[in-house]
Amino acid sequence: MIEADIVISGGIVVTMDEAGTVWTDGAVAIRKDVIVEIGPREVITGKYRASEVIDAHRRLVMPGLVNSHTHAAMTCFRGIADDLNLTDWWSNYIFPAESRHVNPELAYWGSLLACAEMIKSGTTTFCDMYIFEDETAQAAKKAGMRCLVGEVLFDFPSPNVKTPAEGLRYTEDLIKKWAGDPLVNICVEPHSLYTCSPSLLRDAKALADAYGVPLATHYLETMTETGVIEERSGVPPHALLEDLGYLCDRFFVFHGVYMTEQDIRLFADHGSKVVHNPESNMKLASGVAPISRMLEAGVKIGLGTDGCASNNNLDMFQEMDTAAKLEKSVRLDPTIMPAETVLRMATRDGACVLGLERQTGSLKAGKKADLIVIDMHKPHLTPMYNPYSHLVYAVCGSDVETVVIDGRVVMRNRRLLTIDEEEVMERVNGIAEEIKRGMKG
Amino acid sequence: MIEADIVISGGIVVTMDEAGTVWTDGAVAIRKDVIVEIGPREVITGKYRASEVIDAHRRLVMPGLVNSHTHAAMTCFRGIADDLNLTDWWSNYIFPAESRHVNPELAYWGSLLACAEMIKSGTTTFCDMYIFEDETAQAAKKAGMRCLVGEVLFDFPSPNVKTPAEGLRYTEDLIKKWAGDPLVNICVEPHSLYTCSPSLLRDAKALADAYGVPLATHYLETMTETGVIEERSGVPPHALLEDLGYLCDRFFVFHGVYMTEQDIRLFADHGSKVVHNPESNMKLASGVAPISRMLEAGVKIGLGTDGCASNNNLDMFQEMDTAAKLEKSVRLDPTIMPAETVLRMATRDGACVLGLERQTGSLKAGKKADLIVIDMHKPHLTPMYNPYSHLVYAVCGSDVETVVIDGRVVMRNRRLLTIDEEEVMERVNGIAEEIKRGMKG
Repeated sequence: MIEADIVISGGIVVTMDEAGTVWTDGAVAIRKDVIVEIGPREVITGKYRASEVIDAHRRLVMPGLVNSHTHAAMTCFRGIADDLNLTDWWSNYIFPAESRHVNPELAYWGSLLACAEMIKSGTTTFCDMYIFEDETAQAAKKAGMRCLVGEVLFDFPSPNVKTPAEGLRYTEDLIKKWAGDPLVNICVEPHSLYTCSPSLLRDAKALADAYGVPLATHYLETMTETGVIEERSGVPPHALLEDLGYLCDRFFVFHGVYMTEQDIRLFADHGSKVVHNPESNMKLASGVAPISRMLEAGVKIGLGTDGCASNNNLDMFQEMDTAAKLEKSVRLDPTIMPAETVLRMATRDGACVLGLERQTGSLKAGKKADLIVIDMHKPHLTPMYNPYSHLVYAVCGSDVETVVIDGRVVMRNRRLLTIDEEEVMERVNGIAEEIKRGMKG
Repeated sequence: MIEADIVISGGIVVTMDEAGTVWTDGAVAIRKDVIVEIGPREVITGKYRASEVIDAHRRLVMPGLVNSHTHAAMTCFRGIADDLNLTDWWSNYIFPAESRHVNPELAYWGSLLACAEMIKSGTTTFCDMYIFEDETAQAAKKAGMRCLVGEVLFDFPSPNVKTPAEGLRYTEDLIKKWAGDPLVNICVEPHSLYTCSPSLLRDAKALADAYGVPLATHYLETMTETGVIEERSGVPPHALLEDLGYLCDRFFVFHGVYMTEQDIRLFADHGSKVVHNPESNMKLASGVAPISRMLEAGVKIGLGTDGCASNNNLDMFQEMDTAAKLEKSVRLDPTIMPAETVLRMATRDGACVLGLERQTGSLKAGKKADLIVIDMHKPHLTPMYNPYSHLVYAVCGSDVETVVIDGRVVMRNRRLLTIDEEEVMERVNGIAEEIKRGMKG
């Protein structure tokens, strides 16, 4: 018998590997932070002796979900302003609340609450853009979550940095501080082409290149954005990206709702990638990204929830369900965006978008052990004809029972092991009380 | 002190009454099957002594949700065929599976499983159309759920009835059998204008009129339906409805995706109503119903999940979230379909569509005690600025903790009291095994 730390035994194992392997009565052996072998239950349990055996009978085991775009700390503003037009929402609610209340404490506790919510709904990796990102990195570390985080960069001051140069310095410090960390990865994140000067955009690219880290930005989220960018720069957005040298395989964008055929071809040619945020785009009435066309053209697509002020949750199972249904509805074709494609966006392809494909996104010997166990023995999941269908159209975040990240059990039978749930809720409720007082003032 | 059977004490009480009353620290007193009083916690608890007190501190109390369109027994076909075009889906999967496998046993256990799922996600009333509806009525009775059910009527034989006349007779027997039942209500349900001959449609209307029961049908769900009806009848669908004398306040339709301005005006004028099924319409790529326009015109709208072969769950919380987001997205206006409007569709207005507005749909003294208690002390519901926003955009079905229907606690702390969950899942899994064997043969 070979020694292992954890064996997850029994149940359906959906690997999301390139071959689409599914073991109907499978098992996964984990040593330290790594998956050592996956296969039929009898083979794995006959070969490995583990200090912890997780029974997955009547359950489903799959890679942890990858939330490729969020603003974690914005849990503190969850539902603070809904059903408003974008200008009203931003100018009268989000911007004043952020200017007044965002500080390291909010960033830390808001991010930790987001981690609690994400783990409890099956997400093991997230990509974040916000203010005081070192706090978000620390929250992820505390939670035991894998992440790619970057400080938001724009021309105006933020509660954290007074100038673009300070923002770039803060980002560089993050890169140095977290280099080699097993969970935390850093990314350079200019907010958008219309909130950053060309010189900031160039400096951001140079910083990402200097350290070989990913570069990400919001891109063509709303209908008016293309016009604004053209007016400022004199060229269409895709030409500006080319001019800035952004198009490369370490570059990815959030939203891409108004990406044109030219954008799509350029992204495909250069290996640049897109994160789809269907629920946020729907709620803010931004429009619908041409996802089928991007997939057809070979652009890699990840899936994200966006922040809690525009969704208002971080549940990737709901996001998958919506991603599939929205595309079918808008293109009037029920055969597009089948369940397996959507599930790939939320796992393997998401990991690829974030540059973490060698570590996470599928269950494969040699990859990090980031996986979730889902209880399938429930009325709303009975009966089951097809596991992919169930994962996209029927499973809820609350069906996730046990979560392993980097070989560590962070949730067992729905109890978080790395986060004191009561403490986090108390802290964020306290912060929200201040925000409410601020809104009255 | 006045005697009561149940007092639900503390927490936010969202009544969904006409005035939009919300008690931030409220209580509800119940005697037998009826709500006797609602008000501030101190007032109610100082006035009533109850044999059962349900603590709703840090929780939210609201009327049970009304699922205004489903095919309950189709839980047995949950996810049997997804991501297919409608003809393929119907001809190669659903129709053969139904013809071969639907029998009273499937109808009963499939419906009981649906009741389990609905109660566990906060639905207390549902409207059903399927085959062997007496079985569905019995399942609802066993579960303790309020319902409006009707046998599907069309020109061809079903597994239950060989002729339209038999279908009408079966419906009439249902009406007589269940007359005066506190929970089960019967409805006349011709399948659609294109699957029923004019004479069947007329007989259905006559039957509904004779007993004063509601009349409901699928209407303009798909793009091709209008053309098919026009070809068969020589007039547009709304003219056929007029000709048949269908337009009255006991008449309502499912879907209405392709309803025209003329339809909408006629429905508004006659008090006819519509059930919106956004998730099913999205998944089957049917199109998007003009809901904002209907609301503007004063048409009452209910919300439904449709059956599990086209959704694939019966979760009304998810349905509300989608209803709000889809409409904003399609009309490119984030201010339409605000949370409170959607919540009304899923409660008070849904009850009105089903003709049950005097019994259920809001919390009001004198109405039946149909209500749910939601645990709001969870990471994904923290913090809370606005209860309506949370109910539509953040709460999940699994947050529902306790459910009372007709004054009876049917779920307490997520444990079903009227249904043996294990038995129902075992039975339906057995039925599904037979269906799987049938698909291979």
